[in-house]
Amino acid sequence: MKSTAARNASLHSAARASYRDRVRKSVGTSPGSLIQREDTPKPVIQVLAYGPDAYTEETQVAPDKLLRYTQEWPVTWIQVSGLGDPEVIKKIGALFHLHDLSLEDVVEGLQRPKIDVHDQYIFLIGWHAEFRERMEAHQFSIFLGSNFVITFQSQPGPLGAAVRQRIKSAQGVIRTRGTDYLVYSLLDMLADSYFPVLEWYGDRLEEIENDILQRPQDNHLVDIRHIKRDLLRFRRLAWPLRDVINTILRDDLPTFQPGTRLYLRDCYDHITQVMDLIETCRELASGLMDVYMSSVSNSMNQVMKVLTIFSTIFIPLSFVAGLYGMNFNPLESSWNMPELNWRFGYPYALFLMACIAASLLLFYWRKGWLGGRRKKTHSPAPPI
Amino acid sequence: MKSTAARNASLHSAARASYRDRVRKSVGTSPGSLIQREDTPKPVIQVLAYGPDAYTEETQVAPDKLLRYTQEWPVTWIQVSGLGDPEVIKKIGALFHLHDLSLEDVVEGLQRPKIDVHDQYIFLIGWHAEFRERMEAHQFSIFLGSNFVITFQSQPGPLGAAVRQRIKSAQGVIRTRGTDYLVYSLLDMLADSYFPVLEWYGDRLEEIENDILQRPQDNHLVDIRHIKRDLLRFRRLAWPLRDVINTILRDDLPTFQPGTRLYLRDCYDHITQVMDLIETCRELASGLMDVYMSSVSNSMNQVMKVLTIFSTIFIPLSFVAGLYGMNFNPLESSWNMPELNWRFGYPYALFLMACIAASLLLFYWRKGWLGGRRKKTHSPAPPI
Amino acid sequence: MKSTAARNASLHSAARASYRDRVRKSVGTSPGSLIQREDTPKPVIQVLAYGPDAYTEETQVAPDKLLRYTQEWPVTWIQVSGLGDPEVIKKIGALFHLHDLSLEDVVEGLQRPKIDVHDQYIFLIGWHAEFRERMEAHQFSIFLGSNFVITFQSQPGPLGAAVRQRIKSAQGVIRTRGTDYLVYSLLDMLADSYFPVLEWYGDRLEEIENDILQRPQDNHLVDIRHIKRDLLRFRRLAWPLRDVINTILRDDLPTFQPGTRLYLRDCYDHITQVMDLIETCRELASGLMDVYMSSVSNSMNQVMKVLTIFSTIFIPLSFVAGLYGMNFNPLESSWNMPELNWRFGYPYALFLMACIAASLLLFYWRKGWLGGRRKKTHSPAPPI
Amino acid sequence: MKSTAARNASLHSAARASYRDRVRKSVGTSPGSLIQREDTPKPVIQVLAYGPDAYTEETQVAPDKLLRYTQEWPVTWIQVSGLGDPEVIKKIGALFHLHDLSLEDVVEGLQRPKIDVHDQYIFLIGWHAEFRERMEAHQFSIFLGSNFVITFQSQPGPLGAAVRQRIKSAQGVIRTRGTDYLVYSLLDMLADSYFPVLEWYGDRLEEIENDILQRPQDNHLVDIRHIKRDLLRFRRLAWPLRDVINTILRDDLPTFQPGTRLYLRDCYDHITQVMDLIETCRELASGLMDVYMSSVSNSMNQVMKVLTIFSTIFIPLSFVAGLYGMNFNPLESSWNMPELNWRFGYPYALFLMACIAASLLLFYWRKGWLGGRRKKTHSPAPPI
Amino acid sequence: MKSTAARNASLHSAARASYRDRVRKSVGTSPGSLIQREDTPKPVIQVLAYGPDAYTEETQVAPDKLLRYTQEWPVTWIQVSGLGDPEVIKKIGALFHLHDLSLEDVVEGLQRPKIDVHDQYIFLIGWHAEFRERMEAHQFSIFLGSNFVITFQSQPGPLGAAVRQRIKSAQGVIRTRGTDYLVYSLLDMLADSYFPVLEWYGDRLEEIENDILQRPQDNHLVDIRHIKRDLLRFRRLAWPLRDVINTILRDDLPTFQPGTRLYLRDCYDHITQVMDLIETCRELASGLMDVYMSSVSNSMNQVMKVLTIFSTIFIPLSFVAGLYGMNFNPLESSWNMPELNWRFGYPYALFLMACIAASLLLFYWRKGWLGGRRKKTHSPAPPI
Repeated sequence: MKSTAARNASLHSAARASYRDRVRKSVGTSPGSLIQREDTPKPVIQVLAYGPDAYTEETQVAPDKLLRYTQEWPVTWIQVSGLGDPEVIKKIGALFHLHDLSLEDVVEGLQRPKIDVHDQYIFLIGWHAEFRERMEAHQFSIFLGSNFVITFQSQPGPLGAAVRQRIKSAQGVIRTRGTDYLVYSLLDMLADSYFPVLEWYGDRLEEIENDILQRPQDNHLVDIRHIKRDLLRFRRLAWPLRDVINTILRDDLPTFQPGTRLYLRDCYDHITQVMDLIETCRELASGLMDVYMSSVSNSMNQVMKVLTIFSTIFIPLSFVAGLYGMNFNPLESSWNMPELNWRFGYPYALFLMACIAASLLLFYWRKGWLGGRRKKTHSPAPPI
Repeated sequence: MKSTAARNASLHSAARASYRDRVRKSVGTSPGSLIQREDTPKPVIQVLAYGPDAYTEETQVAPDKLLRYTQEWPVTWIQVSGLGDPEVIKKIGALFHLHDLSLEDVVEGLQRPKIDVHDQYIFLIGWHAEFRERMEAHQFSIFLGSNFVITFQSQPGPLGAAVRQRIKSAQGVIRTRGTDYLVYSLLDMLADSYFPVLEWYGDRLEEIENDILQRPQDNHLVDIRHIKRDLLRFRRLAWPLRDVINTILRDDLPTFQPGTRLYLRDCYDHITQVMDLIETCRELASGLMDVYMSSVSNSMNQVMKVLTIFSTIFIPLSFVAGLYGMNFNPLESSWNMPELNWRFGYPYALFLMACIAASLLLFYWRKGWLGGRRKKTHSPAPPI
Repeated sequence: MKSTAARNASLHSAARASYRDRVRKSVGTSPGSLIQREDTPKPVIQVLAYGPDAYTEETQVAPDKLLRYTQEWPVTWIQVSGLGDPEVIKKIGALFHLHDLSLEDVVEGLQRPKIDVHDQYIFLIGWHAEFRERMEAHQFSIFLGSNFVITFQSQPGPLGAAVRQRIKSAQGVIRTRGTDYLVYSLLDMLADSYFPVLEWYGDRLEEIENDILQRPQDNHLVDIRHIKRDLLRFRRLAWPLRDVINTILRDDLPTFQPGTRLYLRDCYDHITQVMDLIETCRELASGLMDVYMSSVSNSMNQVMKVLTIFSTIFIPLSFVAGLYGMNFNPLESSWNMPELNWRFGYPYALFLMACIAASLLLFYWRKGWLGGRRKKTHSPAPPI
Repeated sequence: MKSTAARNASLHSAARASYRDRVRKSVGTSPGSLIQREDTPKPVIQVLAYGPDAYTEETQVAPDKLLRYTQEWPVTWIQVSGLGDPEVIKKIGALFHLHDLSLEDVVEGLQRPKIDVHDQYIFLIGWHAEFRERMEAHQFSIFLGSNFVITFQSQPGPLGAAVRQRIKSAQGVIRTRGTDYLVYSLLDMLADSYFPVLEWYGDRLEEIENDILQRPQDNHLVDIRHIKRDLLRFRRLAWPLRDVINTILRDDLPTFQPGTRLYLRDCYDHITQVMDLIETCRELASGLMDVYMSSVSNSMNQVMKVLTIFSTIFIPLSFVAGLYGMNFNPLESSWNMPELNWRFGYPYALFLMACIAASLLLFYWRKGWLGGRRKKTHSPAPPI
Repeated sequence: MKSTAARNASLHSAARASYRDRVRKSVGTSPGSLIQREDTPKPVIQVLAYGPDAYTEETQVAPDKLLRYTQEWPVTWIQVSGLGDPEVIKKIGALFHLHDLSLEDVVEGLQRPKIDVHDQYIFLIGWHAEFRERMEAHQFSIFLGSNFVITFQSQPGPLGAAVRQRIKSAQGVIRTRGTDYLVYSLLDMLADSYFPVLEWYGDRLEEIENDILQRPQDNHLVDIRHIKRDLLRFRRLAWPLRDVINTILRDDLPTFQPGTRLYLRDCYDHITQVMDLIETCRELASGLMDVYMSSVSNSMNQVMKVLTIFSTIFIPLSFVAGLYGMNFNPLESSWNMPELNWRFGYPYALFLMACIAASLLLFYWRKGWLGGRRKKTHSPAPPI
């Protein structure tokens, strides 16, 4: 168990070290200054510009060439993967007049989902969750301008392959809509990324439940705690995203056209479903604590029963043996231990012991302590 | 217990497999595209059109003929049972100008109860619960237009036989009212479908309580957890339905006439009653955890008492036996174990043992550990 | 304990059978149809009509004669006791133009407290609690018109004797005020009926606490659960009544004159007091669970201590006895068990045993396990 | 423990008897009628009238002379101590046109803090807490008119000596302000009276914690329950007082001048501080339950360890002794128990036993069960 | 453990003594009077005045000279460290027309974070947390005027070195902005001061978890309680600070320019992050209780298993030994204990015992009680 805990601790420490590093760097600096992060690669810029009839795609674009796309195409999606070079981020910020504080949030990568409405653009932050080697969640930042969308992510390899594919193959209505629909598609992609992760948690909780019922152990408790903590954090990533979409729907931001609103409401439903799943998982995890505690109690009950059955059977037998081990002098006026001289004294003593043991076993069997009279109850099937 | 858990798990897995299947299919597809579901039969369309004075009913209608009814009758109720053919659903959607996103929600069948107000129709989702072989809940989707109501359900055999009968026999006011009253009747039918299911849960909890008080077992705990989880999900199906009706009442939707509002308020009261029942059941289920834990403790207490009574009675007796089993040499200057040579030494030893055992038994009887002095208390009768 | 549980179960089942019966009858019927109830007597109508200077009272009035009173007197209070004949209820409804849905709520008798404002009358529902043979709560329905008040109750014997007396003796301002003041008086009567019932629960909880501290038993747990469930239901009857009064105060219903509002605010304070008492009782009941669990633990502690003290004292003694029961051959080169041949060998062994027992007893006495060093602490007196 | 519980019960019963008495008397009477209370002395009226330059004070004033003060002085503070004579209260009410319902609330003395705005005066209720022989809380009622303040209290000896002193010595701004500032001073006095009481509870909880850690007992549990219940009630007295002040600040009551508002906001902060302290105490009390439960568990652990160590050490020793107590016949072909005839057989057996005992002790010492390897951890100092 | 508790208690008492002292002094005094505090040094005044192009700094300024700065410089930051001399505070208050109640709050040092908007200035209170020898939190009061900012702190050594440095080195935009930006910088400094403290708590909780899993002890419980209490207090210091900033953002205070609002929103996000961390820590601390309880149970389980294994193995062995220690007379018609005369009787008995012991050990090994078949489960890595 130690090694598992140790391994966890080290993974956890690594993640936290990076986190603390960023907090420490940003605390005390002048607001709006960008820190240099080591845990994310150099930025790679990929552009996908499209209109109703055509599209163009280029990878590894230099920042200087970006403005050209926005002048030529109705919608330009600039996707920056990796935040390891503050200079590049600053240059992009300067080209599109992005505020220093927004850029700081992008690079730091520690913001809750939020929406900031600026004069020239809307700044949205969401989180993408996925399952590579282990569970990972990364901030995904979106700048939504009149004819451009800029996204920033810390992982290499641009996200949103399905959206990209849909644009290129002109599937659905995406090519005929503006930047607002693209942002909706990206937010929906974020929401969709939560389902497999939650599925993993659900399966894991079921596994742990089975394990506990077979044999409760300390590390189950640690596992449950970790899952509860993770779900708490997960909720913190998903819940404000709902608020973000709600803000868009409620505040009537002119950037979002009425036709897109309908889709955003659909996305809102998806996140509500995610919230429901998280709450169900949390409920299950809390319930597992009770199962654990009860299993521990049951296991102690078993131990006690074994002890009690053994002790109470052998203690009277030993007493009988001790009785006939007494050294009273078999004087002639034979009140003293006549049994010792009986012809069948020894068989009689053995028979006596066998009777005692048998009657006690019968007693425990009747009480159901010997495990033979377990009553089956039918568990209800899940209704929904 | 294993087999019960295993059976549950498999039923549960089957339900979940279908759920996941649908989630996976819909994640990543372009919004508004309909998935092909295998767990529901091909759609069967049934039409019931009526006015104040007459009605007509037809089953297995082809989609093309549907518009004719809406042109001829004041109210047309089109009931689609089974969602297994996306093409049919699309065709109906095209005839009545239903939005692709709404149709996607219908087919996917994973939405919480909600109301979406579109320009030409109102889209409502509720859930119907019932008890066939096992508990089942299915999405029931309603499109409410000016003179038509279209309902979709995944199960074969159209729901709402009582409503249908009331229309045909012109019972109550239903024939004289418009589509809004029909929608009220359907919502009320959904609310009414929850009562027998909740009754089943209430009975089941009582059964489990009795079982636990007789003999607590691991599977009781699992049962309680399942019921709690089911009730949590149940609440999620019923609670938003209340919001839906509240939205209708509060937002003054012109489709709903003032006369119908009164009935909707009645339906609102019914759902509130359902919510109360769910909360009571949840409270009962939570309380059962305490009963279980306490029963386990009590059972351990019993085991300990048996062990303690046996041990403490026989240990002194064995000691006495051991005492007179010592081999001290009965030299003439007879300080050494004179009892062994007494004429009544053995009866004296037996009598000594009997006294010790009797006084200990008396002591335990006084303490009430022998089970003979249980005090009866009167439990209060349920006041309400 | 079984018999208590069985008795409870049967009482409970009777109450629930009636409840289910009514739910079943009303589910599936057309809205607004009145069910035939068997658990309440035939209606008896009693009229009390009054003005500032005079009053008239008549019992067992036929429905037909009711309208005459409302034409002659400023205020007419029609009190219907018993709901066993739907025809009579319908006739009264027809005379005063009461809506079918309201009448259905009256007869069914399962509504939470609520207020429905109709054009010609206001419909209020509250619950009356009392303590006959056992705790009982019944729905009390009030129709408030411009110059009449109609009340319905399922029990025989009209409620509100104190209000009736106040009217007849012209005590206070009641004779000079209108129907709104009469309704206030009736609502206040309902609120007042909760105090003795809550007092009973408070006393019962105290009794159970004392019992548990003396000796915890399974049925205490069941009792606490029942009380918690009852209080939960009680809260459900009282809480919405507060909302009802709040609605009257907030919505400025013209039926209620400013002078009466002041009194209603007083009534509101009373119900708030009831809510406080219910919450205190619930807190007490929840706390009793902890007391119970801790008492069970303590009781097990006692059992363990007895076992431990007995075992640890006699086990070394038995060992000593066993030691000198060994059969080593006392050869001449006397390393082998010389004690057996000592002159005072036996007294020495007994003395050794006494020393061991005494030192162990001292050890346990020091640890406080012998019950002699219990430390008294002063419990604080209740401050408020 | 019984006696403590009994004493508590009796004190508690006394307080509750008075409470019930008043509830019973007021239930069923016509609204606005004053009950005759036995637990409070006859009213004593004390007047303090003042202006910016002078003041006059008189004790034991007859009700008739009160109006003279209000005509002559800018501010008149009439302080009534004792509510034992309804006639005097009524007379004062008649002089200043106070509503019957307000007077009923004053005399009954069971109201939560509240503010009622009447046309001619504002009626405020707060509670004063103090620590005489035991904790006591009494209702303090304030009538605020344009140029008079009337306060009612049930205890003898007028409260607010500090405020009185400040008026007489013209300390601060109190003499130059109107009645609203006087009411602020009185409300602030009520808030200040809660601090010493809460301090007492904090100290008491710390005491109990120390006691429990030394030795948990049933009565600790009872104490904690009483404190939790008291704090719950305390919160009920303090919380609405905050609402009262909030109402004054929010509703812009013209009686309160802008200059006084600033002071009321300060008073609001004080009550918020009181609420914080109450919540901290409640948190501490809840935490004590866990400490108690864990101490009980630990104590059982100790008992079990003692039993286990004793048993497991002596049981093998006894076995060895029993082994060499067997009576196998040492025939010549000496497979049978040759040890008995060894020269050092007995020392060898003793040495064997000593080895067994020593190795078991070492084992337990390693496991830390002998109490010698307790690891100290540093508890964090309180940061705030 | 006692010594740790005692040390804590004394530290805690010291902090509380100062707290109580201040509460006592301020209770009962006339509002707006300044108490004399002993636990804070005499005030030292430090001035930093700056404009876009230049700055001046002076330490140990006499109060009289302060006004000169505000006349000459666009922004003057007056920083008062130490509150030990009410006269100096009063003099500053008089110079800048600060209200007596505000000054009282400053000196008392017991206020929750709040914002009071006066005509001529805005008064803000926040708390600064830090980690010197032990955790410490002190009130930090800010007066924001049109061209001056006055800060008060009780510790010696002015806070905000980073802000001061940024002003002097003209880093970022701070020199070009007004007093509102300076106040933002100070509030952000307060928020930043919470991160290291929370980090400490997080580390501490992890330490305790590891300790508990190795060996649960009473003092862990006390530690967890203290941390929970501290976090509760911490939350109370941080939560209202968020409200303060929210008030500024929402109420459109003209003092704060639109450009600064953006920065304040950033600061708001930081405090939200602090709140999240606090909640996570609280969740972790609550979870530790479960870990503790379960560890205690597990530890008792271990004890019971050792006892059971030892007892059940040796009890049958002792019985066999006792059996052959019986003294039945081996008469010629040899039914009586023939084994004693067998040639291999003794080896046979030893072999019998060995068989019994071996089969029991096998039984326990199969049950997994011997600790050899522990099943490893993989704990999930933290995803976020």
